[in-house]
Amino acid sequence: MVWDPLAGTRVLDLAQPMRRGMPQSPNHPPFRMAIERRHGDVMRPDGGSAANELIVTGGHVGTHVDALAHVSQDGYLHGGVEALSVQGHLGFTALGIETFGVYVGRAAVFDVARLHGVPSLPPGYEITAADLAACDAEVRPGDAVLIGTGWSRRWDEPEAFVGHRAGCPGPGVEAAGWLVERGAAIAGGETIAFECIPPGAGHAVLPVHRLLLVERGIHIVETMRLAPLLDTGATECLLVLNPLPIVGATGAPVRPLAVLP
Amino acid sequence: MVWDPLAGTRVLDLAQPMRRGMPQSPNHPPFRMAIERRHGDVMRPDGGSAANELIVTGGHVGTHVDALAHVSQDGYLHGGVEALSVQGHLGFTALGIETFGVYVGRAAVFDVARLHGVPSLPPGYEITAADLAACDAEVRPGDAVLIGTGWSRRWDEPEAFVGHRAGCPGPGVEAAGWLVERGAAIAGGETIAFECIPPGAGHAVLPVHRLLLVERGIHIVETMRLAPLLDTGATECLLVLNPLPIVGATGAPVRPLAVLP
Amino acid sequence: MVWDPLAGTRVLDLAQPMRRGMPQSPNHPPFRMAIERRHGDVMRPDGGSAANELIVTGGHVGTHVDALAHVSQDGYLHGGVEALSVQGHLGFTALGIETFGVYVGRAAVFDVARLHGVPSLPPGYEITAADLAACDAEVRPGDAVLIGTGWSRRWDEPEAFVGHRAGCPGPGVEAAGWLVERGAAIAGGETIAFECIPPGAGHAVLPVHRLLLVERGIHIVETMRLAPLLDTGATECLLVLNPLPIVGATGAPVRPLAVLP
Amino acid sequence: MVWDPLAGTRVLDLAQPMRRGMPQSPNHPPFRMAIERRHGDVMRPDGGSAANELIVTGGHVGTHVDALAHVSQDGYLHGGVEALSVQGHLGFTALGIETFGVYVGRAAVFDVARLHGVPSLPPGYEITAADLAACDAEVRPGDAVLIGTGWSRRWDEPEAFVGHRAGCPGPGVEAAGWLVERGAAIAGGETIAFECIPPGAGHAVLPVHRLLLVERGIHIVETMRLAPLLDTGATECLLVLNPLPIVGATGAPVRPLAVLP
Repeated sequence: MVWDPLAGTRVLDLAQPMRRGMPQSPNHPPFRMAIERRHGDVMRPDGGSAANELIVTGGHVGTHVDALAHVSQDGYLHGGVEALSVQGHLGFTALGIETFGVYVGRAAVFDVARLHGVPSLPPGYEITAADLAACDAEVRPGDAVLIGTGWSRRWDEPEAFVGHRAGCPGPGVEAAGWLVERGAAIAGGETIAFECIPPGAGHAVLPVHRLLLVERGIHIVETMRLAPLLDTGATECLLVLNPLPIVGATGAPVRPLAVLP
Repeated sequence: MVWDPLAGTRVLDLAQPMRRGMPQSPNHPPFRMAIERRHGDVMRPDGGSAANELIVTGGHVGTHVDALAHVSQDGYLHGGVEALSVQGHLGFTALGIETFGVYVGRAAVFDVARLHGVPSLPPGYEITAADLAACDAEVRPGDAVLIGTGWSRRWDEPEAFVGHRAGCPGPGVEAAGWLVERGAAIAGGETIAFECIPPGAGHAVLPVHRLLLVERGIHIVETMRLAPLLDTGATECLLVLNPLPIVGATGAPVRPLAVLP
Repeated sequence: MVWDPLAGTRVLDLAQPMRRGMPQSPNHPPFRMAIERRHGDVMRPDGGSAANELIVTGGHVGTHVDALAHVSQDGYLHGGVEALSVQGHLGFTALGIETFGVYVGRAAVFDVARLHGVPSLPPGYEITAADLAACDAEVRPGDAVLIGTGWSRRWDEPEAFVGHRAGCPGPGVEAAGWLVERGAAIAGGETIAFECIPPGAGHAVLPVHRLLLVERGIHIVETMRLAPLLDTGATECLLVLNPLPIVGATGAPVRPLAVLP
Repeated sequence: MVWDPLAGTRVLDLAQPMRRGMPQSPNHPPFRMAIERRHGDVMRPDGGSAANELIVTGGHVGTHVDALAHVSQDGYLHGGVEALSVQGHLGFTALGIETFGVYVGRAAVFDVARLHGVPSLPPGYEITAADLAACDAEVRPGDAVLIGTGWSRRWDEPEAFVGHRAGCPGPGVEAAGWLVERGAAIAGGETIAFECIPPGAGHAVLPVHRLLLVERGIHIVETMRLAPLLDTGATECLLVLNPLPIVGATGAPVRPLAVLP
């Protein structure tokens, strides 16, 4: 049967836990959960009781996939779709996250932190094409590509993780172009934005988003918890990527899985 | 490699799309999404622009997994955990949905609608142990079990789907007990509550929740879109179940996948 | 002192209570409140404890004031302001509810239900200029005008109150024009929309909103609890109207007060 | 008529404007508003269009009134009400903000900043009974009392306003006791908490809340914009205090008004 080959495989959880106060971009609604009904509030006639919650969040909060609707350039989304014509009160009528669907396939893993012999790259470090070429990993057309900066190991340092002052490591346009040339279909990383964020500059411009989302139609996965995958030293894995099908959203939370032999 | 056996497999998306007005229980916060920033609101110096959203939802909205913290009996959660001692302003400190983790494994598929030769079972129909025994499916210890009522085919009829007046089909305690005896570890269905809801009675008592969640520690998956899986006639599949890791929540949205040969 | 003349006056609360499930327009986000932190969740070292809540709502939920930014006609807001040029991710940069400020002044009270000898006007009833002329009330330039339909007496019948099927009573364009001619500066009523809503038609068009908000710059107050004021038989009062100063919003909740001798 | 004496009076708005990023306590849900429907999204057949918003907030966000349900001591609310017995999924069944109702009456104004010849008191400054006695203001039984620290003049400095590091000025227990002895019924101030918050200590204990809310049943108004009132030099005014009637909430936003001769 289909699952027999999975016997003995390892399944790694690549999502960061979601809770109030977790690192996230100030551009997006802060995650908040309140337990609305608690046990004991309403007792059913048979002594049973149910609890539930009220959740406020954004589509780019926690580990998430960016939809192609997320970024435009000069007024246009990927494929020349005019942004103003597809955005409305129910979300986007084109290129929303539900159009991504689901990815179950190969991922190439480039651990640039390991390449440099550090647990995490320094803030503001720009990953280059040479870095990627020096990693022992191979992109095949249609692949997802996961770039290890080791940044997910700093999840418990919210201020450093967000990197407003010191910046965050990430691929520059050159490195992103290197991935594009090799046929990458999805690009994922550990930081809030899949970009090199220089110290003090903030998210003033997002050139890698432009290249991937707008020009090439390549989806981006952000705030991934790649640490357990990087720890294995694997250079490839099976990736399961199934973001919540929120119709018309510019992004959605996801709990990605890596399957390893 | 690990994904080679997946070549030629089919991956089915078992989640209902999430949008305003979709069928959901009135006990839970209504799903609402607003596009907060639209393209054109803020132009970056290079002509780029990003859009995002504000989302309000509940942990039991859309396709979701019930955590063991969801239901208590006489004040106790599964395993004798006192409900009052583990619920608080940050959620549950025990048995929250993050303790479910991830399931990647076999699912047995019982299509009771097909057994009865109907696209969907009538409202209020109680699935019996005899129904399950008559299906051409087998539960192995540790399996997930998916029960087809065909109800996901009625997603576009919100009033009927919720079933306040006419009720919903689902397993009775006897059928649930039959699953328990065979070692089911997870139980999933298409309706809002994995229960038989008689006409006019509403969710006054939830005996199957009590048996599964409280007494046996078996997680429940609700509002699944099983239709595409039932359409194949498959009696087993590989199920991927990775609910959002919302720490301390009593349930969380999920986009389950079925993998078929 | 300034409050001496108020000795012996009556202050009437003209707001409907806000709670989950209260009647509101389905066009607006449903009101929801969860107690986030409860007493006992976090005890301070001295035995103190504080509780708080998480609130989700809309600007047109419960008793509220419509900002001029709320309605446009052919793309323009009041005064020829182009709607597209003033709406953005932080709300409206012109004609938001904060520009209303505060009103403390005379209100003329037209009790049309009393005129017809009924506790509340029938659903779909159109209030005419003749109705207003027949009331024993007088509009002075700059006044607020409150129109009694008696509908606030039906607050506890949510389905009827909303009036999706049967409609709601309210002023027609002719009656609204009569108020405009007399110099009304603010217009308030008890229904969700200050309009005559015919049976079965819903809010397809809102001609009174167009006349008042767009053409005349007259603010509208909706879902007022006028019953206690109508019960007095008063034809004028001092009205205090201080909506929450939510910058850039198209409307905001308010707790209006009537002061009577 | 009742409003005649108001001719020539001044009405001052004592609320801070509500917008994303405004200073607020991190204990409470951050204020967030998104315009949900914009003009142009849905055009009515006659060329009309309406915009609305989705609002997320807390009961203690912006200018607000604390309900007696807000604080407990050793498990009890004011009047010996057991906190656990009155809190639930719909809020508090006793001492919620709706039980405050509305206050229209005299307020005594103590401008302690003016007393010390400064625009705002230093962070962490404890207002003493001697300070209050030295002000040219008089408390009469049943009065509201407004204490000027000048802190509302620092609204545009969010970090300083919140005072996590440097603290905030406010009354100590001694000063609060002085107000209690004179029969104050409501106490209002400009800071987030009506307390003296020493540098570095945060809101570890809230002794003035305990004295006023729990022991004496005196409501507290926080984050008031007293600056325009203090600027007048007035030592008394008419205060209108009408918090949103959110049933069962521990606090609610309000737009207080001061009326001066």
